[in-house]
Amino acid sequence: MIGPIEAEIITIGDELLIGQVINTNQAYIAEQLSLVGVRVAAMTTVGDTMEEILAAFGDAWRRRQVVVATGGLGPTHDDLTKKALCRFFQTDLVVNDGLRSHIELLLQRRNISWNPAADEQTRVPRTAALLPNPVGTAPGMLFREAAKLFFVLPGVPYEMKEIVDGSIVPLLTSTISGSAIRHRTLRTTGITESMLAHKLGNLEEILEWASLAFLPSPTGVRLRLTVHDHDDTRATQRIAVAEEKIRSRVEPYIYGTGTEELEDVLGQLLAKRGLTIAVAESCTGGHVADRITNVSGSSAYFGRGVITYSNASKIALLGVPPELIELRGAVSREVAEAMAAGIRASAGSDIGLSTTGIAGPTGGTPEKPVGLVWIGYADATAALAKKFQFGDGRLRFKERASQAALEVVRRRILRLD
Amino acid sequence: MIGPIEAEIITIGDELLIGQVINTNQAYIAEQLSLVGVRVAAMTTVGDTMEEILAAFGDAWRRRQVVVATGGLGPTHDDLTKKALCRFFQTDLVVNDGLRSHIELLLQRRNISWNPAADEQTRVPRTAALLPNPVGTAPGMLFREAAKLFFVLPGVPYEMKEIVDGSIVPLLTSTISGSAIRHRTLRTTGITESMLAHKLGNLEEILEWASLAFLPSPTGVRLRLTVHDHDDTRATQRIAVAEEKIRSRVEPYIYGTGTEELEDVLGQLLAKRGLTIAVAESCTGGHVADRITNVSGSSAYFGRGVITYSNASKIALLGVPPELIELRGAVSREVAEAMAAGIRASAGSDIGLSTTGIAGPTGGTPEKPVGLVWIGYADATAALAKKFQFGDGRLRFKERASQAALEVVRRRILRLD
Repeated sequence: MIGPIEAEIITIGDELLIGQVINTNQAYIAEQLSLVGVRVAAMTTVGDTMEEILAAFGDAWRRRQVVVATGGLGPTHDDLTKKALCRFFQTDLVVNDGLRSHIELLLQRRNISWNPAADEQTRVPRTAALLPNPVGTAPGMLFREAAKLFFVLPGVPYEMKEIVDGSIVPLLTSTISGSAIRHRTLRTTGITESMLAHKLGNLEEILEWASLAFLPSPTGVRLRLTVHDHDDTRATQRIAVAEEKIRSRVEPYIYGTGTEELEDVLGQLLAKRGLTIAVAESCTGGHVADRITNVSGSSAYFGRGVITYSNASKIALLGVPPELIELRGAVSREVAEAMAAGIRASAGSDIGLSTTGIAGPTGGTPEKPVGLVWIGYADATAALAKKFQFGDGRLRFKERASQAALEVVRRRILRLD
Repeated sequence: MIGPIEAEIITIGDELLIGQVINTNQAYIAEQLSLVGVRVAAMTTVGDTMEEILAAFGDAWRRRQVVVATGGLGPTHDDLTKKALCRFFQTDLVVNDGLRSHIELLLQRRNISWNPAADEQTRVPRTAALLPNPVGTAPGMLFREAAKLFFVLPGVPYEMKEIVDGSIVPLLTSTISGSAIRHRTLRTTGITESMLAHKLGNLEEILEWASLAFLPSPTGVRLRLTVHDHDDTRATQRIAVAEEKIRSRVEPYIYGTGTEELEDVLGQLLAKRGLTIAVAESCTGGHVADRITNVSGSSAYFGRGVITYSNASKIALLGVPPELIELRGAVSREVAEAMAAGIRASAGSDIGLSTTGIAGPTGGTPEKPVGLVWIGYADATAALAKKFQFGDGRLRFKERASQAALEVVRRRILRLD
């Protein structure tokens, strides 16, 4: 095979063109195709109109070996994809008995009675091979012509994912051999894009091994390495050399790789060392605990947290002295430390973590502006607090403050500070 | 003007084609353009290669009156957009003094020293009008030819947004008059897409006034109405009639409109009635409190919450009797009620809200499967709990359980149950 197989992803839906829905499906499909060595050459989005859908199908099917289209398979009137497929592949809709049984069972389990919408869902294009959708009524479909594959998926994200994972990825993996694309992503936090570029120094020494992209986000910059190589082993080696060169220069800022979140990494660290953590959140309002408990198995190291928004709750639940709040203010080094020590003591955990700050958009003063946050940390040997300034809107503030809080713990455990 | 102005959005970045980054920029730009009456006809995504970028620029510029391109304006080597613009518009890069001062000030404020990357950021295409970026180093740019507009934006989302809101929207608004596109979105929760379609009955009575799309998500189905009409007033009337018809049939399931989140709506309800709320979360791990505190001003009605992951913390922080946990299990109606009553009592709030369930993927049993959740509610007159089953993965479970918890409160306050 010369060069990777090229694919195009088509997403269908007016809701995308008016920006009401964010196209997470496109990203998921692109990622899964890339991981099995299929190169996504382009992605297009069209609205719920027959002409636009047919035009996009035609362009993509002419240009690429693999097409993945998603959206418009639901039971309601605005769902045109099945009709478009029948026109495009010159076939008609027929009731599929296996599919009918599946839908009956699904509705039963959800306590929903049979209805016209369900009836509509039992009909599929005659020449399509069906790809099972265990979690929904609309199956995936596959049309084949010569060596080309045209996949169609429902637009509901978790249904789409089931079919991508369960049918498309296995099918493509068995079709393609000798993939020679490698990606490796190193996730950093607590350092800007410019400063990373500066610390990495002469990029040529890295770029001779792999291409490198900087991907900034509010919670950190990801460094993505990519290698295209005909030789599988060499591709793996090249990416490893490039990674090593980066790590030798900015290792302390790299908390994880790939799709790992900081809470995953921190969870593994805590579990491995047999440490427990408890959190006391003011300005982050539960976001830190929410992230910690996103990790399956987190109950092994996380038993409790408190959200102490009011001063009264800081006093009652954490034993912060009222005089301290009076003297230093709720947003202060001293209160952050007292909160961390307080939650550690009351939870009986190894580590106490706290946040107190001004999420905004109101409540700032010249001395304590919106975006100011103190992160408190306490363990058996130390209680400390670190100050940060994150001023870009309430939700982003919570995200960034939570990231900083988790990173304070990671760095303490690894003795990076 | 005949028909709306048509735009195309081009997003640039390899990270999009491998699915590493979700294209939120595209959605944001699409939404803002739609709101000022520009019709987004297509959206395309290309990688970080000169040929692909130039080809996308050429196609879009030929076909549309407005082009908005985003991405690839950063200071690092993989950022090609400025070079592509110079080639496409046959110009060259020059240092802009005003921009240089802006960057100097920005770096100073962030405590970052001047560096080669910053130097690179001071150069812009000679023929571009600059659009101010108050929060970053890369300005937006505008190229004009005849009546056509070509906007270019940095890819960092909050920088992109500043420029869209501050420059592009005002510019387009002054360019376009007599916009006649109206959108209205009604947000529902607690009801499936099929059941909504069923309850709405004969859709023709709605569709004669406005087009209608069903947009399902894990936390609910949005109903989006759209009207295209040459007459502004009539467009407004038509959408109001269609909305009224929908409301008359499914009102109790509609919690909000537009981009309102359930926590926004609930926050307004609580504030207006002078009610306070406190939460005790087990399986949702802080997600409910996180959502409540996403709302600016939530400290008026939310003083505290606890995350009681362990049984010990349910006993210590909420006064749940150990025998009850022993007898009924932590995931039970009785414990959910006791948790809600417990947090209400300890916080001294009007309402207590609790969650206890099995987020999975492990920990389920035949009697209490993964996805089971009890939502507890307590106020001065009642303590109750409602059972739900949400079984599609840990994070989606937390999302859906949190949504259900907030909805239980909304429905109690409005006496919908």
